[in-house]
Amino acid sequence: MAGVSDPQGVSLSDLVARFGGELIGDGAVRVRQVGTLEGAGPDRIAFFSHPRYRSSLRLTRAGAVILARPFAGETARPRIVTDNPYAYYAKVAAYLNPPHKAVPGVHPSAVVDPTARVPASAVIGAHTRIGAGVVVGEGVQVLDGCSIGDQVSIGEDTLLYPGVVVYPGCVIGRRCILHAGAVIGADGFGMALENGRWLKIPQIGRVVIGDDVEIGANTTIDRGTIEDTVIEDGVKIDNLVQIGHNCRIGAHSAIAGCVGIAGSTKVGRHCRIGGAAMIQGHIEIADNTDISGGTTILKSIDAPGVYTSIFPFLPHREWLKNAAHIRHLDELAREVRELKARLDQLERSAR
Amino acid sequence: MAGVSDPQGVSLSDLVARFGGELIGDGAVRVRQVGTLEGAGPDRIAFFSHPRYRSSLRLTRAGAVILARPFAGETARPRIVTDNPYAYYAKVAAYLNPPHKAVPGVHPSAVVDPTARVPASAVIGAHTRIGAGVVVGEGVQVLDGCSIGDQVSIGEDTLLYPGVVVYPGCVIGRRCILHAGAVIGADGFGMALENGRWLKIPQIGRVVIGDDVEIGANTTIDRGTIEDTVIEDGVKIDNLVQIGHNCRIGAHSAIAGCVGIAGSTKVGRHCRIGGAAMIQGHIEIADNTDISGGTTILKSIDAPGVYTSIFPFLPHREWLKNAAHIRHLDELAREVRELKARLDQLERSAR
Amino acid sequence: MAGVSDPQGVSLSDLVARFGGELIGDGAVRVRQVGTLEGAGPDRIAFFSHPRYRSSLRLTRAGAVILARPFAGETARPRIVTDNPYAYYAKVAAYLNPPHKAVPGVHPSAVVDPTARVPASAVIGAHTRIGAGVVVGEGVQVLDGCSIGDQVSIGEDTLLYPGVVVYPGCVIGRRCILHAGAVIGADGFGMALENGRWLKIPQIGRVVIGDDVEIGANTTIDRGTIEDTVIEDGVKIDNLVQIGHNCRIGAHSAIAGCVGIAGSTKVGRHCRIGGAAMIQGHIEIADNTDISGGTTILKSIDAPGVYTSIFPFLPHREWLKNAAHIRHLDELAREVRELKARLDQLERSAR
Repeated sequence: MAGVSDPQGVSLSDLVARFGGELIGDGAVRVRQVGTLEGAGPDRIAFFSHPRYRSSLRLTRAGAVILARPFAGETARPRIVTDNPYAYYAKVAAYLNPPHKAVPGVHPSAVVDPTARVPASAVIGAHTRIGAGVVVGEGVQVLDGCSIGDQVSIGEDTLLYPGVVVYPGCVIGRRCILHAGAVIGADGFGMALENGRWLKIPQIGRVVIGDDVEIGANTTIDRGTIEDTVIEDGVKIDNLVQIGHNCRIGAHSAIAGCVGIAGSTKVGRHCRIGGAAMIQGHIEIADNTDISGGTTILKSIDAPGVYTSIFPFLPHREWLKNAAHIRHLDELAREVRELKARLDQLERSAR
Repeated sequence: MAGVSDPQGVSLSDLVARFGGELIGDGAVRVRQVGTLEGAGPDRIAFFSHPRYRSSLRLTRAGAVILARPFAGETARPRIVTDNPYAYYAKVAAYLNPPHKAVPGVHPSAVVDPTARVPASAVIGAHTRIGAGVVVGEGVQVLDGCSIGDQVSIGEDTLLYPGVVVYPGCVIGRRCILHAGAVIGADGFGMALENGRWLKIPQIGRVVIGDDVEIGANTTIDRGTIEDTVIEDGVKIDNLVQIGHNCRIGAHSAIAGCVGIAGSTKVGRHCRIGGAAMIQGHIEIADNTDISGGTTILKSIDAPGVYTSIFPFLPHREWLKNAAHIRHLDELAREVRELKARLDQLERSAR
Repeated sequence: MAGVSDPQGVSLSDLVARFGGELIGDGAVRVRQVGTLEGAGPDRIAFFSHPRYRSSLRLTRAGAVILARPFAGETARPRIVTDNPYAYYAKVAAYLNPPHKAVPGVHPSAVVDPTARVPASAVIGAHTRIGAGVVVGEGVQVLDGCSIGDQVSIGEDTLLYPGVVVYPGCVIGRRCILHAGAVIGADGFGMALENGRWLKIPQIGRVVIGDDVEIGANTTIDRGTIEDTVIEDGVKIDNLVQIGHNCRIGAHSAIAGCVGIAGSTKVGRHCRIGGAAMIQGHIEIADNTDISGGTTILKSIDAPGVYTSIFPFLPHREWLKNAAHIRHLDELAREVRELKARLDQLERSAR
């Protein structure tokens, strides 16, 4: 994955010319890779973004450090001062680690339907199948062992890692990354009950994925029942996430691993959903909402903010003792009300 | 996925002749596809099944509507009156959207063991492997990139989407649908501890799946340790579900996405398990039990009903304030008991 | 999967000679397979490890039983007495069910980079791709439909079931088992926010997996951001588990299905994490910690023990009644404090 483009690395002056920020120290210093404050040697550049790591900053042997103004005096290493050190680091890391591009071409073992359009700049990996009428954009990489259903369209410069399955008719935008084993467009879980038997509801909608979306390994996004399931631009989804049919995920929202979002739910823009959160179907989550990891959301959220629903963990014996009362909270609350009434009465008669 | 068999669609009279119900309005009206009340134009048929959507019913431009008797007067559109509009809709949708069937035959890139039995009516997709002694039923479709282990049997008209893996010896019934990336028959999580090391317990049982079962994308069902893991007829399982070794899932139960069922648990017939529920191992769930999404079940359930165990979500600050008391509920309950005793005492002496 | 090496089976005397324990009864009795106390016939050997199954022990028709000293008198069947019947059973089961080994060789449909090193003793299955510079150990089996990225190394006698994807640069130890659909080394979920857009942080670390590790079906383990994600020797991981970037899982820990472990968390050695548990990122779990299934861990655990955080399940109506109070626990606790103060006051004035 790694692979520095230039074995001489890049000078700090070059970085500042390219990405801005203020340089303090020797601009001729060259770095070849990013590193952590603790682990980086003189050929690496590290970043500092949280006061918690102050002692690591003081001790770092990194060739240079990216940090914010208030901390610029806490190291003597060459440093780049910027408002958003983590974003700056992201850009430097991306510059030093350009994504690997496979050699364009269709692997001889791939099976490409003659009606599919595959430009010469695309990569189609070994043992991959491209269905009828598929439209592949310039610079697309569909690595090995993928299955691209009929009439799918994949926007330019999108990368599909091995073993991705895209069901027929789905649309994937530009510059997306789909990790291994992701399944896009399987049938939603729709069925009607009749006499104790489930009748399958055909799922005739699509999945439509915008530009700059990243989808994690083994994540599943179901096609819509009638209309489409939509993942808007810039959404980032981690591994093992399930997104039900007819959902819409608003632009630039991020969804961490193991999250489940049931069908027909609309998640707003710029939301952040923590790992293993579970979101009920048929609800709406306001823009800019943060949902804590492990939280279950059963109703719509109208106001942005941070929402949480976690049972605090305890040593098992204490849990046993305390959790038992959960089943009787209503009774406990009633008892407190009764005590209050009796106390009111006593106080009145004592006056 | 979509694809109406007849470009002229079907007349309402034909639908009623085929599926029953009472027609109100012009039976010559033809519909070509299903739609939502909001989105459907005159060539589509929609359904109405919940009073919540009454205003959509009044405004719909659908060519026809499927609905129940009490609401038959709330639209002037041609309509079909039936007791179970959602089931009726399922049948119409299935009729208008017959499942796509691939052209029978074995793709030249498939690898089929000479001892496997593959009828001429079956589809074996590109880059699929069929192991020794496999028995494939009439009309079966194993799409591309699947791996079917030795001695597996697949009942007639069953459909495996791309990338399904079936381990050796498993049995899949008739008319099943297995979505992409499902893994059937991996080893259960069985091991014995000896001197701090785990010894693997060989998993020599199978997975046996009945007829008319649907299994979601990237769902995993483990083989039994000694006896079999069994999924009975008509069970519907959503994406990213884990079913442990030796489980038995009763007929016509439905299991939503992200559910985990630990080993040796028996789920009854006609149960409904909501998304992201977690069910302990070695327990039994009564027939007709509903488990709410996000619920953790730690003990057997003897009586049917709806069961829930969700911590209600709150704005994070309020959660912090309230959740802290969970760790001290036992103390709080004790304090209430003490207050009660003291109050009893005071009241006695006040008399 | 099953398949006894010797159709005559093995005598109890042979088992005791091989694995120790004390034989009571006829050592010439031969068993061909393991079985359950309830299901085993005279050609099978069963084990008894929990007093709960005492009645099954008395009724068993098994050819022999493995049990601990205190229960040796509760059956008249031939029996092997041992301190750890379950571990003994594991060894007998493994002896009677040696793992299936495919015939060594590279399947003609496999695509192996000429720079990869694949010994003659290895199996490379149909439709599998082996990347540049990959090093495959002696006796390794990479079954069909796998994708092994460039520069990966796989230790001797490791088995990859169909459809496993290993991203470039990862290291897998000896005698590991990776189940179908596992994805090793996808990018961690790392990104920086700038002006409402997510910038991807390149993930340049690897996944390094020790010896004797088992990884379940469709489980995902992300590569490190800068340094490596590490799974130490003897770790056992079930299906549909997500392990985030930069995690370290200590030796001989076991992680059940549907668990999520967020990035940069260190789990100690000999831990046991129950199904569907969720562990926060950037924390540390002490050696020998047990985490109950369904539990959410939000903070580091310094002391070994069993930890739990489950909301007890209730019939839905009772849940509604009781859960409502969770949102007002702080108020309830305040009311109790106030009642106490008022009662203190009353008691003082009553004296």
